[in-house]
Amino acid sequence: MNYEAPDLPSGPLDIYRKKASFNWKDMLYFLEGEEILAFKKCIFKTLEDDPLFARQPGEDLPLEKMRELTFLRVKQLFRYNLLSQEESMANPFKTVALNDCLCMYDLGLAAKYFLTKGMFGMTVANSGSERHIKYVEDTEDMTLFGCFALTELSHGSNTRAMRTTATYDPSCQEFVINSPDFEAAKFWVGNLGKTATHAIVFAQLYTPDQVCHGLHSFIVPLRDPKTLLTLPGVMVGDMGKKLGQNGLDNGFAMFHNMRIPRENLLNKTGDVTPDGHYITPFKDPNKRFGESLGALSGGRVNITRMALVNLKLALIVSIRFSATRRQFGPTNSEEIPVLEYQLQQWRLIPYLAAAYALEHFSKSIFMNFVEFQVGQIMRVKSRRQAEMGREIHAIGCSSKPLGSWTAQNGIQECREACGGHGYLAMNRLGALRDDNDPNCTYEGDNNVLLQQTSNYLLSWLHAKQRNGVRIESPLHTVDFLDDLHKILASKFTATTMEECMDSAVPLAAYKWLVCFLMIASQKRLEEQRTLGCDEFEAHNNSQVYYCRSLAIAYIEHNCLQRFHDLTVDEDTPAGLRAVLSKLCALYGLWSLNNHMAILYQGNYLSGPKPAELFQMSILTLCSQLKDDSVALVDVFAPSDFFLHSPIGNANGELYKNMWSTVMQGNKVLERPSWWKEFSSDKPADTSLRPKL
Amino acid sequence: MNYEAPDLPSGPLDIYRKKASFNWKDMLYFLEGEEILAFKKCIFKTLEDDPLFARQPGEDLPLEKMRELTFLRVKQLFRYNLLSQEESMANPFKTVALNDCLCMYDLGLAAKYFLTKGMFGMTVANSGSERHIKYVEDTEDMTLFGCFALTELSHGSNTRAMRTTATYDPSCQEFVINSPDFEAAKFWVGNLGKTATHAIVFAQLYTPDQVCHGLHSFIVPLRDPKTLLTLPGVMVGDMGKKLGQNGLDNGFAMFHNMRIPRENLLNKTGDVTPDGHYITPFKDPNKRFGESLGALSGGRVNITRMALVNLKLALIVSIRFSATRRQFGPTNSEEIPVLEYQLQQWRLIPYLAAAYALEHFSKSIFMNFVEFQVGQIMRVKSRRQAEMGREIHAIGCSSKPLGSWTAQNGIQECREACGGHGYLAMNRLGALRDDNDPNCTYEGDNNVLLQQTSNYLLSWLHAKQRNGVRIESPLHTVDFLDDLHKILASKFTATTMEECMDSAVPLAAYKWLVCFLMIASQKRLEEQRTLGCDEFEAHNNSQVYYCRSLAIAYIEHNCLQRFHDLTVDEDTPAGLRAVLSKLCALYGLWSLNNHMAILYQGNYLSGPKPAELFQMSILTLCSQLKDDSVALVDVFAPSDFFLHSPIGNANGELYKNMWSTVMQGNKVLERPSWWKEFSSDKPADTSLRPKL
Repeated sequence: MNYEAPDLPSGPLDIYRKKASFNWKDMLYFLEGEEILAFKKCIFKTLEDDPLFARQPGEDLPLEKMRELTFLRVKQLFRYNLLSQEESMANPFKTVALNDCLCMYDLGLAAKYFLTKGMFGMTVANSGSERHIKYVEDTEDMTLFGCFALTELSHGSNTRAMRTTATYDPSCQEFVINSPDFEAAKFWVGNLGKTATHAIVFAQLYTPDQVCHGLHSFIVPLRDPKTLLTLPGVMVGDMGKKLGQNGLDNGFAMFHNMRIPRENLLNKTGDVTPDGHYITPFKDPNKRFGESLGALSGGRVNITRMALVNLKLALIVSIRFSATRRQFGPTNSEEIPVLEYQLQQWRLIPYLAAAYALEHFSKSIFMNFVEFQVGQIMRVKSRRQAEMGREIHAIGCSSKPLGSWTAQNGIQECREACGGHGYLAMNRLGALRDDNDPNCTYEGDNNVLLQQTSNYLLSWLHAKQRNGVRIESPLHTVDFLDDLHKILASKFTATTMEECMDSAVPLAAYKWLVCFLMIASQKRLEEQRTLGCDEFEAHNNSQVYYCRSLAIAYIEHNCLQRFHDLTVDEDTPAGLRAVLSKLCALYGLWSLNNHMAILYQGNYLSGPKPAELFQMSILTLCSQLKDDSVALVDVFAPSDFFLHSPIGNANGELYKNMWSTVMQGNKVLERPSWWKEFSSDKPADTSLRPKL
Repeated sequence: MNYEAPDLPSGPLDIYRKKASFNWKDMLYFLEGEEILAFKKCIFKTLEDDPLFARQPGEDLPLEKMRELTFLRVKQLFRYNLLSQEESMANPFKTVALNDCLCMYDLGLAAKYFLTKGMFGMTVANSGSERHIKYVEDTEDMTLFGCFALTELSHGSNTRAMRTTATYDPSCQEFVINSPDFEAAKFWVGNLGKTATHAIVFAQLYTPDQVCHGLHSFIVPLRDPKTLLTLPGVMVGDMGKKLGQNGLDNGFAMFHNMRIPRENLLNKTGDVTPDGHYITPFKDPNKRFGESLGALSGGRVNITRMALVNLKLALIVSIRFSATRRQFGPTNSEEIPVLEYQLQQWRLIPYLAAAYALEHFSKSIFMNFVEFQVGQIMRVKSRRQAEMGREIHAIGCSSKPLGSWTAQNGIQECREACGGHGYLAMNRLGALRDDNDPNCTYEGDNNVLLQQTSNYLLSWLHAKQRNGVRIESPLHTVDFLDDLHKILASKFTATTMEECMDSAVPLAAYKWLVCFLMIASQKRLEEQRTLGCDEFEAHNNSQVYYCRSLAIAYIEHNCLQRFHDLTVDEDTPAGLRAVLSKLCALYGLWSLNNHMAILYQGNYLSGPKPAELFQMSILTLCSQLKDDSVALVDVFAPSDFFLHSPIGNANGELYKNMWSTVMQGNKVLERPSWWKEFSSDKPADTSLRPKL
């Protein structure tokens, strides 16, 4: 399998491309590797050649049409079967590559495809037993179309509080699924709006003795796959328009004592015998419940990556725009690209650095997750496997916030940095922002998830203090915390900008920051307990300062650490190391900038010098990376067809591309159909004026 | 004119309403006054009673339909003539009140109405002479429909660089309007897409001797008002879908040597005699140009207010949601409103404080602007009047960034704070964000505008240092800077949280901050000059640190100062002072939090104590304001009809309201029209699989 990167069209972007300090193709091969590049090329070409995937920038499609088109495209993806199970086993990173490509095309499409194929299929495979294999098989060829129905109208974050019930009736060996009222209707379920034929429904399991055994998952048929008509006993509907991802049909369902066979219980973590006895291999119901929600953990690692794809696309658009948009200049007659302005560099280039940091980070945590998953599939029961589970959970609960917020803020900055043209729908920045937005919410609200991470970190501190345990984890994200006291005694010592521009400097500062926030969070918790708060209250009152910051600093540190390690890795090509090091240092300094007050507060920094060094280093790095920035986005850029943003096209012909797209708009030069309303019945007299 | 505030429906929000520390009606009367309240009530009632203004939350309208509906509504507004010129002269604040109401309904509608009635009409009145009065009159009854055509496809911020030409032809006493190429097409012009019959076109004026006299404005007919067909010599079209405000038809125009009478030149600042000689009362072309763009200054003050309206609506929705959404609790059986969580309070309540600060600020700068405008209309030529012009310009150039960014960030926080339900289109948070977004861009990109403000401030410092001028301005926003050195010698001295919770503390810190940034910015500029940079370069390289921060700190200080003055004003009712003081202190501390690093860097703060005091004070104020927050948004809230967000309805019946809206959606329970696509032609075989 050979791959050769295509040359880019020449044009106004050449002035920057020629100034780049590195070869963009070398970077591409280094980041992706030939196998993945060939695989992605095949996906790109397949969709680009298929008229079903053709679209027009800025087109105004009604909701129903978007849902239809997205469904048809999903069906086509099933036909293409772009990644077989064997291939994804042989190279798990291909699942990321496929998802990257689909997300670049349309996040709603990627989500719809993933929800039935991955989320439904995988959950059934992981939570069920042999008797459920047919559902997995039926998913593969779209005989059924699945969805994952956990949240209800009145409950999201508090998963335990779901109120749908599944009561076992031994007389006919069936479960009776029921929604006690509309507030317990399943709500927000992707694919449920128009297309799902089957749902994994989470419901409180009741045995005939009226004992509730907690939340369990069931396969519930919803619609007749032949007619898509709703089955008796369930009311299913479409929630309507969302801010984004409108190709995906989110929906709701209410069950009216609907009966399903006993076998439809996904019984890995608990089962009911034909005569109505509950059996489970778990003694601790919390552990059983944790296991059954395991599907969400992998999702968060995925979302980190999906958010990054959105950020990359926005950066490609805004940096190519900035390199070709000229405004003002040293003289009245000469205008310079807006990328030449310090302010524009400072607005965009740190996000570019963040994208490179997240690129490596999201891949690297995905590989961590694969390692963990393999252990799970092999049913490894070691302490290490359990610890890895906790650590992956802590990573996913903070990497999703890091990725989705960085993308959300970055896309908004890109939108504004493109001025009015960034506000035109055809240039896609709005769609990217809207499609990215729910990444902050689904699979757990970012702010709520961060609590899981800080709890994990504090439990390490507790174990060390109470039992003298060495802090050391399978993925090594917390190992440095074992040197807590040594790190806390350290200070910022750099005195020159050159020193400061080495990523080791922000990295050391981050280590101090995480340690400081650990101690400060623990102190705050203790204070609350001393004041007589129960655990619930004590935790709530310690969130803002500093548990939340702790979780954020932890994951930023880890992201920076992994990137830093890459820049000093021997396998990293020499010709790329300089630019990667700059990106890494910039990411570190810029992220750290949000925590400067804490660094001063804790006396890691003092006096005016360090802040000035940080500021000057950031500006210097932005300025040094400015000439590389076009090449750096070329590395990420798909074809214009996939980028789908005239101002971001590879040829850099900003205005020609935009003008041509405007001209091909619908009825662009026509008078409006309602023109008669203009000329008739003029409001010449204002007799309608209300009496005050 | 009597007004009585309506009682609010009782329901789940009562638990908070009953705990409020103040009477919300007292606050309403205090903030608005009876006359404005009665006026607003009349507007609300008029629109609410008119079926043309009826709509359904989350409805999915095609672009053309949105434009039609918005046009029809504008026409109806003309009929209603809700505010006569005499009334607005008698109480200028009524124009703000009218605009508030229209923005609450739909920002795109407000913009469309304002662009023809205000922007076109006022610009003609201000820039033209007697011969143009008919155009103003024709605007009043919609005989013509106007637009303001300044920006071009390739130029926005750099207004001087517009390339459309107007060449005078004395042989027939006409101007020939021409677009040299498509890059010079007028672009982004509101109302131009489908409805404008006339435009104010900015073009480079050439006399027959081929001398260019710079940018001037001309009235150019575009479409036949009878048929809406485009006139010969011009190509006009619709730019298509935008991220928001889609009721407003933004458009483009290219002129092909189109001829207009000589009299169509708006000739206040410059004219051409019939035989082709250019005459102007201005000796300095920069001053002439500045005068002709005067219309943009008032716009920025307005936008500050428009952004605030968006923020208020988002806060009403998210705080009512947070007060009624329950999730988790101290025990498994009891769930508490999410507003009870520290994290939720910290996410939302500071924005509520910001909304109250901006409420007073936006009104107060509007009254400053009115004072200035009256001087202009009276043709006052005093030094004070000129100074006021400079000051208002500096205020508008920073108040628009302050207002629009606070709103943009606040709306996003509100969206996320409402979880998934905030992501549903029907709840309007997406529309608010999308409609607010261009406030950051039009009438000048925020980042570019801030440079005007910092230049203004630095010019004062320069004048003081060079000429010993006392720093003192008509609106007193810079007066404190005269004490520069005394202020810079001051330090943070508060030692208790009680002290810190007085707005005088953040106010004093802000004074220090502005002074510090003034000196730091000047120093940076000097360094750049010493390095050999020309002025253009020196200014560019001083933007990020610290000119930009300087402008932001200046306007935040001023906003806080005005709010602080209100809280200590004798006319402020005693019963409201406590809650207003808390809001003011919270706004000050929270805003200042973004500048903490600078406060440490400059040694205004040192050691851990001040940061901790700030943090604890913010949390304490949030917690104290929590029980007031529902009443505080009730003060801002229009009727449910105008709020247009089921989760924000006044009755607090979150789920009932949402469920009922979902159920009334279009074809909500129906199978999709394309259901046969589901069941036929299943992708059972994957013969389409591409060969790798």
